[in-house]
Amino acid sequence: MTYLEYEIAEQPDILRRLLVEEWPAVTTIASAIRHFQPAFVCIAARGTSDNAARFAQYTMGVHNRLPVALAAPSIHTLYEAAPDLSRALVMGISQSGQSADVLRVITDARSQGALTVSITNDAASPLAQAAEHHIPLRAGDEISVAATKTYTAELMAVAMLVAALAESETLLADLRALPDHMAETLLQGAAIARWAERYRYMTNFVAVGRGYNYCTAFEISLKIKELCYITGNGYSEADFLHGPIAQVQSGFPVIVVAPTGKTLPVLREFLPRLRERQAEIIAISNDDQILEAARQPVRLPSAVPEWLSPLVAVVPGQMFAMRLAEAKGHQIDQPLGLTKVTITR
Amino acid sequence: MTYLEYEIAEQPDILRRLLVEEWPAVTTIASAIRHFQPAFVCIAARGTSDNAARFAQYTMGVHNRLPVALAAPSIHTLYEAAPDLSRALVMGISQSGQSADVLRVITDARSQGALTVSITNDAASPLAQAAEHHIPLRAGDEISVAATKTYTAELMAVAMLVAALAESETLLADLRALPDHMAETLLQGAAIARWAERYRYMTNFVAVGRGYNYCTAFEISLKIKELCYITGNGYSEADFLHGPIAQVQSGFPVIVVAPTGKTLPVLREFLPRLRERQAEIIAISNDDQILEAARQPVRLPSAVPEWLSPLVAVVPGQMFAMRLAEAKGHQIDQPLGLTKVTITR
Repeated sequence: MTYLEYEIAEQPDILRRLLVEEWPAVTTIASAIRHFQPAFVCIAARGTSDNAARFAQYTMGVHNRLPVALAAPSIHTLYEAAPDLSRALVMGISQSGQSADVLRVITDARSQGALTVSITNDAASPLAQAAEHHIPLRAGDEISVAATKTYTAELMAVAMLVAALAESETLLADLRALPDHMAETLLQGAAIARWAERYRYMTNFVAVGRGYNYCTAFEISLKIKELCYITGNGYSEADFLHGPIAQVQSGFPVIVVAPTGKTLPVLREFLPRLRERQAEIIAISNDDQILEAARQPVRLPSAVPEWLSPLVAVVPGQMFAMRLAEAKGHQIDQPLGLTKVTITR
Repeated sequence: MTYLEYEIAEQPDILRRLLVEEWPAVTTIASAIRHFQPAFVCIAARGTSDNAARFAQYTMGVHNRLPVALAAPSIHTLYEAAPDLSRALVMGISQSGQSADVLRVITDARSQGALTVSITNDAASPLAQAAEHHIPLRAGDEISVAATKTYTAELMAVAMLVAALAESETLLADLRALPDHMAETLLQGAAIARWAERYRYMTNFVAVGRGYNYCTAFEISLKIKELCYITGNGYSEADFLHGPIAQVQSGFPVIVVAPTGKTLPVLREFLPRLRERQAEIIAISNDDQILEAARQPVRLPSAVPEWLSPLVAVVPGQMFAMRLAEAKGHQIDQPLGLTKVTITR
């Protein structure tokens, strides 16, 4: 068994622990945010953590009415011209807490008087120390280079902050039910392992989502790139129609992330356009119509609320990327030329 | 001659006209923005125009110290939960001015009391009408589906706003010199036409930039996807190192956008990592060291200031995408399954 497989399987337990152990601290941070009254939120992150930032953009936008900007760390590090973040809640998300550019955004923001919060898996890391508030992921060491359990833990930390800011019992109940949905989703792993080999010689692909699951399309695409060395990308369905759909020809693999919810109608309209072009569709959904249109249907639990669906919808993508890398005979825990901690400036 | 070729060639004249005819109006808009004192900027755009928004994020961040968020229009249209944009400058960028989701962000923001500005190529369009202020691109009709002249005109409009907000004579002088740099860059077209055929059977690629030219990497990648139906993507060099570099193996085509400036040192360090992996490098630069490391060096004018380099650096990408599409025998002005105006919600 690889570390990756083990870490994917650990996810329900990690989410459960994070919710129980950090909920009180998160409610305290939420109070500080309400008191600060930020005009907007700015989040600095790289790689997988950037996809957690994309999740925050939608969930904090919808449930907390907070506009969220994704920071451009180069403005701070290379151009040395920090924008005025004094009226912002500025968050840094990083598994390792080591990324120099993310750290710089937080230290610049804090010195300007912004409210700063970090989310990391290492409470002793520079990023955890630099921010006024810190949410530790408590996910245990992540050995595999491809991040899985720390990604869903980052989403959970963001979702806890969203629920605490909204002071909503309903959202909190959603969070409590989530680890069981995650465990149920992991049961799809056996089917995925059976059909993954079909894609052994796939040379490119795209993953498409919308709204809350924009981040899921990006994160699934990143896992496949990291583990399988295949070119592809994540898209919002709307951006995809603005040009990139041109590349879809007969047999082109498209992973569609389409759980039930407000984005379902546009994704239902999107599938016939893919079928017209004879795309090979892998669908991650809990909607019968979507699943029926797919070559490979991966069923999500029916009771997952849309706003939390990214936590479970990414899991089939993690498992697919792992099985495909195995079918290709690749190193699973140590992809070629990648390191666990990437320091960029 | 295709419309695309004609429209690429028109770009210097369009930039010159836009600067002369709209500079007074842009200074008036800049005064309104200074008076409003926005806490941040939020920009709604799709496709090519989204890359103009990425340009705005860096230039307004560095020169105006304004944090810039790229809007998530789905929050407005699908979730019907507009974030609080009342303290923001909210901009909508769209060639056609028809995109329903971009329009919705502007109307929501204006009803909340935000300061709204639109940039379009059609002063009679819904988006132009909806915003309090409008900057018309005056680029003439764009017939080719792939946007070229309206993209660089959008960048010019943003750059004019940046210079006017900064009240900087130096930045304005930079703008005045730009059309000549653009004309000089077009002269690279002959060389590109000679070597484009080599990539006739290229099946995937990436384009990498950093800082100001993050947008250029995205836009070149979008042109190649639209016109040549090839899978690939644009990356920030930093994000690329956080995983996607795994896909680069011997012969993998990487377009590196690396003009001289603050990002040059990190890109100079990046090239040896590509060469280690035996990537096929197409470099767009005015730095000798970068150009010498490339299989296909495309030289940019030496005097282009870094902040405006995206306007000229995209041009070789436009020309490469066009010549490659010709080599593949594709429809140039009407790519398969794309339409000039894409309405998404």
